[in-house]
Amino acid sequence: MSAAMTMPATGSVRVPLGERGYDVRIAPGLLDRAGEELAGLLPSDRLVIVTDQTMAATPHLPRLEASLAESGLKTRTVTVPAGEASKSFGVFAQLCEAVLEPGIDRKTTILALGGGVVGDLAGFAAAALLRGLPFVQVPTTLLAQVDSSVGGKTGINAQAGKNLVGAFHQPRRVLIDPTTLDTLPLRELQAGYAEVAKYGLIRDAGFFAWLEEHGQGVIGGDQAARAFAIERSCAIKAEIVGDDEFETKGGRALLNFGHTFAHAYENLTGYGNRLLHGEAVGIGMVQATELSVRAGHLPAETTDRVRRHLRELGLKTAPGEVTNQGFAADAMLTAMRRDKKASQGRITFVLLQRLGQAFTSDQVDAAVLQDLLERPV
Amino acid sequence: MSAAMTMPATGSVRVPLGERGYDVRIAPGLLDRAGEELAGLLPSDRLVIVTDQTMAATPHLPRLEASLAESGLKTRTVTVPAGEASKSFGVFAQLCEAVLEPGIDRKTTILALGGGVVGDLAGFAAAALLRGLPFVQVPTTLLAQVDSSVGGKTGINAQAGKNLVGAFHQPRRVLIDPTTLDTLPLRELQAGYAEVAKYGLIRDAGFFAWLEEHGQGVIGGDQAARAFAIERSCAIKAEIVGDDEFETKGGRALLNFGHTFAHAYENLTGYGNRLLHGEAVGIGMVQATELSVRAGHLPAETTDRVRRHLRELGLKTAPGEVTNQGFAADAMLTAMRRDKKASQGRITFVLLQRLGQAFTSDQVDAAVLQDLLERPV
Repeated sequence: MSAAMTMPATGSVRVPLGERGYDVRIAPGLLDRAGEELAGLLPSDRLVIVTDQTMAATPHLPRLEASLAESGLKTRTVTVPAGEASKSFGVFAQLCEAVLEPGIDRKTTILALGGGVVGDLAGFAAAALLRGLPFVQVPTTLLAQVDSSVGGKTGINAQAGKNLVGAFHQPRRVLIDPTTLDTLPLRELQAGYAEVAKYGLIRDAGFFAWLEEHGQGVIGGDQAARAFAIERSCAIKAEIVGDDEFETKGGRALLNFGHTFAHAYENLTGYGNRLLHGEAVGIGMVQATELSVRAGHLPAETTDRVRRHLRELGLKTAPGEVTNQGFAADAMLTAMRRDKKASQGRITFVLLQRLGQAFTSDQVDAAVLQDLLERPV
Repeated sequence: MSAAMTMPATGSVRVPLGERGYDVRIAPGLLDRAGEELAGLLPSDRLVIVTDQTMAATPHLPRLEASLAESGLKTRTVTVPAGEASKSFGVFAQLCEAVLEPGIDRKTTILALGGGVVGDLAGFAAAALLRGLPFVQVPTTLLAQVDSSVGGKTGINAQAGKNLVGAFHQPRRVLIDPTTLDTLPLRELQAGYAEVAKYGLIRDAGFFAWLEEHGQGVIGGDQAARAFAIERSCAIKAEIVGDDEFETKGGRALLNFGHTFAHAYENLTGYGNRLLHGEAVGIGMVQATELSVRAGHLPAETTDRVRRHLRELGLKTAPGEVTNQGFAADAMLTAMRRDKKASQGRITFVLLQRLGQAFTSDQVDAAVLQDLLERPV
């Protein structure tokens, strides 16, 4: 793919998972056609929409409800509090009880309208209610559109960490309307963009070059650029997930590029508003690129290139931008070893062989890592 | 199979579910060989045993722990309160948090030691923790040994009903040691026996005839008779589940013989100690047999034969044995329509074509049903 190419958005990505396979549709204005998209697809005309209080106050919810009603679908809407705190056992229980009103049966579809929190929570409820209800995702943040919309991971948080309780539950369809990003705060848009850039870095150098040229449009509100960036991101994730649905074969681990660092930053800052997940991933990807450089896989310029692009889009790229002193190397190491992706204390990193090609390694030299944690780029 | 045959127990039943298939081992003394059974089978040497306070006070827990330790397996035991109330969102959350101690990873096995409550609860936790941990069942009640040990249904209760939240999560192996029944109260043994008789009624007239001859031994403590009755029950359930793992094809519905009535009795008596599940199933099977008779599928003597056998084993066979007045027909109908197996208010019954062959019907004549509910046998 060349950086100058026109944008061949087709509006649809297939997630190739056999009988659990599904289509992700991406188009501006899709919310108003949700009824047509779903009417023939679902096993019955009953849906429960799960959303959060923030989204319930936008025009997106009534748009969706109106479109579903026009197609003869019967909906009921359940609202949960906005924010990560809703990915809890308590809200999960409340949501399940609220969905379980008379009239619900195994053909009732759960539709998640919102960001990652709503999608993860409602998806787990859909997986567990009557041991599995049909599920539809309508992600409304850039992060959710390019990340959690593909792959079927659902779940809630436990005291010991994030996403430790959940299920693999694939949706029947994903509807992405990039116009929902118009109401998203800039900071969240930028954070989500880190995951978009990730797909270029791990799998498609041409896409990364395209982003270097068009990334400002993606952030700034160019609907066609947004649609293409989302579609290419979903297509890359679909390819990876198609080869490793249950994260047992290793391929899916590539999606964690930058995340070993990011999870540690998030852990050390308390998973709060101080550092959003995507922001942590942005910094983590720069560090992981530099780790690849210092381990001898990449020329040093690659770190500069990655850093320059993320900075241009308004993302942080160094731990020192989060805290004045950065993070202590030993605290980072402890947090990394505790990560759920670590196995018996061994840390796995995703490194770059070259820009556009990633691999996993649990053989990173301890001294090289120590040095990078002490003197991050 | 003739009623006089010797008991050809092989000690093992295969549940044929492809890559999720597994063996159920049945042998007196198996608890003391659990380590040998599991050591080569599990992905790591770490297990978390989940049991309840009642079982923790029997010799069975230390027997199991000792056997696992002898084979080099490392175990930690988490205990939940005994009783149906533990199948709740609250205890589920507590159990998940308790299992999630440092050192747990995706290769850690959850082992359920106990009856149906422990198996259903621990199984759902195994399904949800890290989105799926290996699971082993060691059922210690007759009901759990012949019912929940095969088929992978796990779950907890919601306010709207039992088992409304859960997962299909197949165990890697099931270990059944009939000697655990030696510490089981007679009433629970009798209740579990109702499900044993069910397998004969729905699938194997020869097995029912064998039970007519040997049922007293099963209840009374004849270890060989127990092992055979459990093995034949598991084999029949395995056959049915193998054809309909996710309850989408209809075959699995046959396992609900007597249950449409039973769930309504349980509902109307509050799911308490007043009427155990198996006791309700016993009464329900007599009524479902009679419904088959009145719908013209069976000669009237069959009801007598079923009732006589269950009575001989100490089971109740009529609603009037639960409450003096029985249950009001309209209350029964309402409860039956609310059952989660009902679809849009339509009640499905499992009927007998002949003893040993069941089928489902949602075409039962309303007047025939009404009459049976008003004048149960």
